[in-house]
Amino acid sequence: MTDRDTRQILLTPGPLTTSDTVRRAMLHDWGSRSPAFIEMTARIRDRLTALAGGADSHVCVPVQGSGTFAVEATLGTLVPRDGKVLVLSNGAYCRRMVRILEIIGRACETCETAEDTPPDPAEVARRLNADPAITHVAAVHCETTSGILNPVEEIAAAVAQAGRALILDSMSGFGALPLDLAATPCQAVIASANKCLEGVPGLGFALIEKGALAAAQGNAHALSLDLHDQWITMERTGQWRFTPPTHVIAALDRALDELDAEGGVPARGARYRRNCDVLRAGLREMGFALFLGDNLQAPVIVTVRMPRDPKFDFDRMYRRLFERGVVLYPGAVTQEKSFRVGCIGRIDETDIRRALHEIAEAVAVMGVDRAGLTPAERAG
Amino acid sequence: MTDRDTRQILLTPGPLTTSDTVRRAMLHDWGSRSPAFIEMTARIRDRLTALAGGADSHVCVPVQGSGTFAVEATLGTLVPRDGKVLVLSNGAYCRRMVRILEIIGRACETCETAEDTPPDPAEVARRLNADPAITHVAAVHCETTSGILNPVEEIAAAVAQAGRALILDSMSGFGALPLDLAATPCQAVIASANKCLEGVPGLGFALIEKGALAAAQGNAHALSLDLHDQWITMERTGQWRFTPPTHVIAALDRALDELDAEGGVPARGARYRRNCDVLRAGLREMGFALFLGDNLQAPVIVTVRMPRDPKFDFDRMYRRLFERGVVLYPGAVTQEKSFRVGCIGRIDETDIRRALHEIAEAVAVMGVDRAGLTPAERAG
Repeated sequence: MTDRDTRQILLTPGPLTTSDTVRRAMLHDWGSRSPAFIEMTARIRDRLTALAGGADSHVCVPVQGSGTFAVEATLGTLVPRDGKVLVLSNGAYCRRMVRILEIIGRACETCETAEDTPPDPAEVARRLNADPAITHVAAVHCETTSGILNPVEEIAAAVAQAGRALILDSMSGFGALPLDLAATPCQAVIASANKCLEGVPGLGFALIEKGALAAAQGNAHALSLDLHDQWITMERTGQWRFTPPTHVIAALDRALDELDAEGGVPARGARYRRNCDVLRAGLREMGFALFLGDNLQAPVIVTVRMPRDPKFDFDRMYRRLFERGVVLYPGAVTQEKSFRVGCIGRIDETDIRRALHEIAEAVAVMGVDRAGLTPAERAG
Repeated sequence: MTDRDTRQILLTPGPLTTSDTVRRAMLHDWGSRSPAFIEMTARIRDRLTALAGGADSHVCVPVQGSGTFAVEATLGTLVPRDGKVLVLSNGAYCRRMVRILEIIGRACETCETAEDTPPDPAEVARRLNADPAITHVAAVHCETTSGILNPVEEIAAAVAQAGRALILDSMSGFGALPLDLAATPCQAVIASANKCLEGVPGLGFALIEKGALAAAQGNAHALSLDLHDQWITMERTGQWRFTPPTHVIAALDRALDELDAEGGVPARGARYRRNCDVLRAGLREMGFALFLGDNLQAPVIVTVRMPRDPKFDFDRMYRRLFERGVVLYPGAVTQEKSFRVGCIGRIDETDIRRALHEIAEAVAVMGVDRAGLTPAERAG
């Protein structure tokens, strides 16, 4: 949307395309104990909590590192050593939560569905009623493995009904998918600076229910990932426990200004939805088959079934587009071969149309025609 | 050294002043799986290993987060669950290692000296001979608590002689203090992008002996902080396991160019030594008393004894200098009240003289005279 001719368009689940102004916010050095930086940290924490309607109920605890660091920190801080987690699993990020729980020694079970199938809230209710040892349910808002939108409102209602706590990984949804903590009870929501908030990577955060966080002292398995300790220090001094990524934080502060200027979460979600709709229509028109139906597709990233025509060569298409400033992403679903095209970040419909144009040219250069892309015709 | 009139001079242990060109390296968005970014990661890892003469013996494993994340990751990855660590402690960063070891459940003991006293290598040898259960020794190169330079060469020799492994936190020394892994055996050396390397914060790393790292599978207490797993993935794919702080990494790549251009570690160390000498001479001339003697002072950060004259108000001086673009740092030694003035980062003698001038003015404005600053006269 700026510098259109020279910039890269990152159609990935992150790192994403950011605005020039967000990147330029990194041109200043900040002392991490200076009053202005302390104010910036407080402002960001308040704004992030408010984005999900959690100002009265939740606090924002940021943590250095990638989104996974924030997920691990939240699980380790909130799930007590004798707790047990039911993980609703339909993709790689759910499976990563299971791996974390195994490493940090917390009991867990999975409620697994296929990668194109959302968890069933009734089944979640059944599992919770059957096992009173389960203290927490962990779920992913949008699984970027496939791009699926999971039904968090219904899941949250089932978990609340059973008197358990929900930990929601909304990494790739927060800031674009609607989430109201007053209506959708979550003990914690986890996200990062570098997805729909359109900051740069280096920082994750969790919005955590105040009472649950206050009760979490001593749970954490790691000093660096102890969100209770991070919170206590921040409340007491306004400062981070350990050197914060000051430039990344300044970029997020600016990115939140730009989110406000755009019209907040509804406007951002609408832009991504438009990107997604244009992308899906264009891909289908070329003959590509999409992994998810429209009803399951979050406006975040689209999984495209890999054409079986031997003339179609994804690596060749990837390199060709890369040279032209458009970056695609490999597939991640395990059921079949695929590639992915993202629709979040500082990009709009014009960028998506440009990417579609490049994809069409790449397909033509490879000599793949529509019949080679469409599974129905392939099967015939 | 650029933009001299408008920039802040951060005289802290970090975040530090960086060059305009290092910050401008953050103006581009990188896809983390793109070939160019994969090359950048490999280049940085090789350059960091080479800086300490470890190209044949060690590998560099970077990790997202602050320096403490890298310290915790290294301890958790290299010290097996039944290992035992002797921590040589004379400041807050040694104490933080003890806290990490307690949290992650590794046995540890401390060999403690006062904050103005380096560990005694003979005592280290005695402790190692007396306790065969000790597998590792952990030490800090320069303790920024006080600014003391610990005798790492002698410590490394004592540890090697006893057949144990040394883990060295060289956070605030790496890139400026000489360190040759061929002559100073370390199983691991830990540092960050944002100290003497003059990158921006958000990234730490460890240089780890290849054999020790290969043997460390399954040790780590946390997925995010598992350097064995991070290494295996990087060697296999060239990529980071989890979203890397791409802009921070690009800044470090540029910062390493600038380190080379300056003349490498010897030239950078010489600039900091000059900064430190000018700073110490100027502070003494004003009547300030310094916590460490010249023989113990690393050219990193200087601890200044707090004048007891009630007219001297550190917070007032801090604010006054802050408004003038010079950022000091509070003290950290526990033995007495103090404040600190750093001499690392993209600053030179001219910046130090400017800071001294501002300090002199602040002291004059408060009505503190030389007699009020000098402890000998205070005692009289």
